[in-house]
Amino acid sequence: MSKDINKCKAPIGVFDSGVGGLTVAREIMRQMPDEQIVYFGDTARVPYGSKSKSTIIRYTRQIINFLKTKKVKAIVVACNTASAYALEEVKAELDIPIIGVVKPGAEVAASITKNGKIGVIGTVATIESKLYSKYIKEYNEDALVFGTPCPLFVPLVEEGWVNDAVTFEVANRYLAPLQDTGIDTLILGCTHYPLLKNLIGEVMGEEVTLVNPAYETAAKLKELLKEKGIENPGTGKKTPHEFYVSDAAERFMSFANSILPYDVDTTRTVSIEEY
Amino acid sequence: MSKDINKCKAPIGVFDSGVGGLTVAREIMRQMPDEQIVYFGDTARVPYGSKSKSTIIRYTRQIINFLKTKKVKAIVVACNTASAYALEEVKAELDIPIIGVVKPGAEVAASITKNGKIGVIGTVATIESKLYSKYIKEYNEDALVFGTPCPLFVPLVEEGWVNDAVTFEVANRYLAPLQDTGIDTLILGCTHYPLLKNLIGEVMGEEVTLVNPAYETAAKLKELLKEKGIENPGTGKKTPHEFYVSDAAERFMSFANSILPYDVDTTRTVSIEEY
Repeated sequence: MSKDINKCKAPIGVFDSGVGGLTVAREIMRQMPDEQIVYFGDTARVPYGSKSKSTIIRYTRQIINFLKTKKVKAIVVACNTASAYALEEVKAELDIPIIGVVKPGAEVAASITKNGKIGVIGTVATIESKLYSKYIKEYNEDALVFGTPCPLFVPLVEEGWVNDAVTFEVANRYLAPLQDTGIDTLILGCTHYPLLKNLIGEVMGEEVTLVNPAYETAAKLKELLKEKGIENPGTGKKTPHEFYVSDAAERFMSFANSILPYDVDTTRTVSIEEY
Repeated sequence: MSKDINKCKAPIGVFDSGVGGLTVAREIMRQMPDEQIVYFGDTARVPYGSKSKSTIIRYTRQIINFLKTKKVKAIVVACNTASAYALEEVKAELDIPIIGVVKPGAEVAASITKNGKIGVIGTVATIESKLYSKYIKEYNEDALVFGTPCPLFVPLVEEGWVNDAVTFEVANRYLAPLQDTGIDTLILGCTHYPLLKNLIGEVMGEEVTLVNPAYETAAKLKELLKEKGIENPGTGKKTPHEFYVSDAAERFMSFANSILPYDVDTTRTVSIEEY
């Protein structure tokens, strides 16, 4: 198979309901520095975690239509809720690879647990979807999976209270039922949660291994690009990453600049409902 | 002016970005038991508080178009953010009366303060709009207005943590700068906040009077209907209130039933983007 250099140099589309997916974009930048990212954050319609399946599928289709206009060579659904509710539905409609954050996270958790007891924390929609549980059992059918929604974590992160006594108290309360189950592995099943990794680790203790699906997803993407022969060779001038949102670009940029390893100086607003 | 009985018997449209506006609907039910309410909660696109002005105006127009199909005789914008950002824009386009929650709340606060120092708490968008301040100064130009956004209050209320140590600690932190200003009046400038009234009162102390714009808005609506001669005479069979949302009707109903004085048994989902 001869390589199509234009395809190799095409960007990777990454999207999320808002800013959380930037933790996935950050991992892709770290693991694949030659790749260009086109990021879309659906800041006008965030959060997805309390919305219904049909709404999330409709939103996901609109975003994919937008990313296609940017000639992306692959798409990463950097949102647990959209991965859980919409990925299977839209996969069949696409002629480029698409991966979500749920499967890579589930796979790693299933392979590293020693006692077969795995916890998952995420939004109400992600936990209700039981998709982490389904994928974990595909790899390890005897695993016991305990899911707990933590709806206040996202607003706490967005408020910037990541190392804070209030957040610690909220985490203590949300995670107490999980501590009683004896899990040895905990999946951070929402893209905002890696920003609370230290605090969650402190609450759960050293004997529980935290799985960050952002990291595992980037690793999976790297494999996938290699397998398809579409990695960016990194030759020539590097095209800068592009950032798009559906609303409030200024606010997005200030958050982006607090978590990405470089300064985002432009973010464009897109009327996503028109796609 | 002879009364048009059909117009008098028409419903009042009440809308909010989600469930918060039910505190306003509740006050209308209390103060005007003969009126029928058609409530719309934009649960697919909640929250408005972090969205831009142009987005909020677009959403407000769509909701008004929907309410017009229900032949409403008046509209109450039971959302502080939409009142602050969109009310003036859409008012001129309408041939029925429309009122928001900001002006009635501002008017009462301006008239009851003794030391002329008034606090306002609300979403980031409501506080940034400075509209409470503008209206307060129309009534009392010497008033000093201190605004503080409290973004975690809405998710805390929606989590049901209304009488909770965590919420108390969050309130202490948010309200500390207001305590230092010496205000004697505090406007609960977000429709969720009346559900935290006791807790906020405890933090602020007895010397600070809390103003609930939901109550004042219902009172203003009553005056307005009387002035226009379109109050419902309460004759004949009462038409039940109607509830519509843009998503997740089940979740809405469970919240509605926790705060309304009767059981909501039907909530319909509307594709609001089509209006």
